[in-house]
Amino acid sequence: MNNFNATEGTMELLESALAKIQPLDEALLAQAQAKLDNKTKPQGSLGLLEDMARRYAAITGDLTPKIGRKVIFTFAGDHGIVEEGVSLFPKEVTPQMVLNFLRGGAGVNVLARHAGAEVRVVDVGVDYDFEPTEGLIINKIAKGTRNFAKGSAMTREEAVAAIEVGIALADRAKAEGIAMVGTGEMGIGNTSPSSAIIAAFAGCSVREVTHRGTGIGDQALEHKIKVIQAGLDLNRPNPEDPLDVLSKVGGLEIAGIAGLVLGAAANRIPVVVDGFISTAGALIACEMHPNVKEYIFAAHNSVEIGHQMMLQRIGAKPILDLQLRLGEGTGAALAMALIEAGVKVLNEMATFEEAGVASS
Amino acid sequence: MNNFNATEGTMELLESALAKIQPLDEALLAQAQAKLDNKTKPQGSLGLLEDMARRYAAITGDLTPKIGRKVIFTFAGDHGIVEEGVSLFPKEVTPQMVLNFLRGGAGVNVLARHAGAEVRVVDVGVDYDFEPTEGLIINKIAKGTRNFAKGSAMTREEAVAAIEVGIALADRAKAEGIAMVGTGEMGIGNTSPSSAIIAAFAGCSVREVTHRGTGIGDQALEHKIKVIQAGLDLNRPNPEDPLDVLSKVGGLEIAGIAGLVLGAAANRIPVVVDGFISTAGALIACEMHPNVKEYIFAAHNSVEIGHQMMLQRIGAKPILDLQLRLGEGTGAALAMALIEAGVKVLNEMATFEEAGVASS
Repeated sequence: MNNFNATEGTMELLESALAKIQPLDEALLAQAQAKLDNKTKPQGSLGLLEDMARRYAAITGDLTPKIGRKVIFTFAGDHGIVEEGVSLFPKEVTPQMVLNFLRGGAGVNVLARHAGAEVRVVDVGVDYDFEPTEGLIINKIAKGTRNFAKGSAMTREEAVAAIEVGIALADRAKAEGIAMVGTGEMGIGNTSPSSAIIAAFAGCSVREVTHRGTGIGDQALEHKIKVIQAGLDLNRPNPEDPLDVLSKVGGLEIAGIAGLVLGAAANRIPVVVDGFISTAGALIACEMHPNVKEYIFAAHNSVEIGHQMMLQRIGAKPILDLQLRLGEGTGAALAMALIEAGVKVLNEMATFEEAGVASS
Repeated sequence: MNNFNATEGTMELLESALAKIQPLDEALLAQAQAKLDNKTKPQGSLGLLEDMARRYAAITGDLTPKIGRKVIFTFAGDHGIVEEGVSLFPKEVTPQMVLNFLRGGAGVNVLARHAGAEVRVVDVGVDYDFEPTEGLIINKIAKGTRNFAKGSAMTREEAVAAIEVGIALADRAKAEGIAMVGTGEMGIGNTSPSSAIIAAFAGCSVREVTHRGTGIGDQALEHKIKVIQAGLDLNRPNPEDPLDVLSKVGGLEIAGIAGLVLGAAANRIPVVVDGFISTAGALIACEMHPNVKEYIFAAHNSVEIGHQMMLQRIGAKPILDLQLRLGEGTGAALAMALIEAGVKVLNEMATFEEAGVASS
């Protein structure tokens, strides 16, 4: 555990998840590479597919890893900061898009179906009362965050509770035998807390990590930078204390993602982290425990400029670079299929001996 | 037709394919983008997926393109240049790997199955007599090329015949209703002709475009560069005449790929070009006709250093960058699944109106 001050009384699930996270087994990594090196191909010639397969095997502890069910958890939450005019879309779009997810018409639905993954939508903080619906998990901690330009976005207790929603989902996924999980999110305004989080940890200027979100213009971008800076100046989040950063300038869906990532690491489930906002959640998790990063696959390189700084801090190399900036888990769905391809190389390719091929 | 001197008597199929290739319809591209812009996402937020979908629609002439059968054609051929000691693996590996393809144990088999694509292996020039086998198309033009360090690799007639093998396969794919084709290859020694081809067209040094192939060391790389340079000095291929380049320093499988690419463009079938060697074939096709490039999807960015110069010359941006260097069609299989994902975005995502979501 790194820089993590556990002082709350209500954080049993979080504490037990953190206690369970182990470093990857180096021997398993080596055994997986030896198995790959005996396949009918020049050594290392399948590049990152081999890296992914090797790590997947070590995470799961299985040199012939099962390709089983895959689930993308799309966490939804609203953001008080939207009242400052930081987003192109109105706040009502958050619940509208949740309903779109539940009807299967959104980008993440299409791409998850393509990858053979299930989408589970988690209301961890939407300012709207949903009817119980199949595919929707209602674990609302609050009806959105408060405006972090005027005070703390959440209480520390709310942040922990939202993290624990994610951990509980990972625990349940393990019990269901789900092979791989992915993260996604929906929350109008949520690039602003994501920029604030990386700026707080990296100690860099807000300008370096703030982009156009869903597509704001030059003037609106300048305004967004000022609003985020004001929020950081007011709240002074402590980068040594990830829960302080998360609660003061974060988001409920970002907390849920942090929890899913922690829970996946604790349960040895490979977790595919989508783009900018998801990586903000993963970063919180990584700042809480130094071994979390070994369980993470970074799906893609987002157009959002703060994303690369997050990935650098985590030490993750993105699988795809398709200039995506939609979120929802769309990049995670695409990357899951590539990770699975790597696992199939490990499981299905013939060895030189089996194929009667001369090795070099 | 660009820089293409059609003087042979036997090239009816090639001439008719070249005559059929049309520029893409700009109106269709615009209509596809308009359809994408109405989907429930910020405009352009699915990046290259949208570019791929738009172009796929324009190529096929269908704004709701069918996702049908996909076939990877893996062309196999041997290379006389191997006797100069340019490769780490012995020449016998070419037929051994063909047999591995036919048993389904090679990298391309695993990744094509993952993508839902069929693999068809084409013997266009292997120095081995295969028994007729399901999945193997025997169209042998010669039992390998001659050593281009000592003379021309092929006659002009052999090069045309091998190109026409590829064109005929594309014509047959069209008749079968195949939706998308991919290229792949197997041929011990075939990075050497590929380097020679790009050096001939780009007028650059052999060193700039020559890498380690399946994994040769420093000294062997120096030797390989010298051998390729000697072949270019001896043969003096004319970069204004793609058939001259292909026949003097190319390969039979490279010619087959050039033909498949030309035939795909002539038949309006999207064609996914694999790595370094496949792109050498695609480059020959592009040098023959200026519109061919509009039908090509570049699968990935190969580790082979000459590949980027080829892609630049074609004007193609690779879809993946996974540090692959295996060939066979492995990258094409992975990229096909991503192109298909883009097409599904176009076909399946809800519009703002359908989903009742407020647009910005």
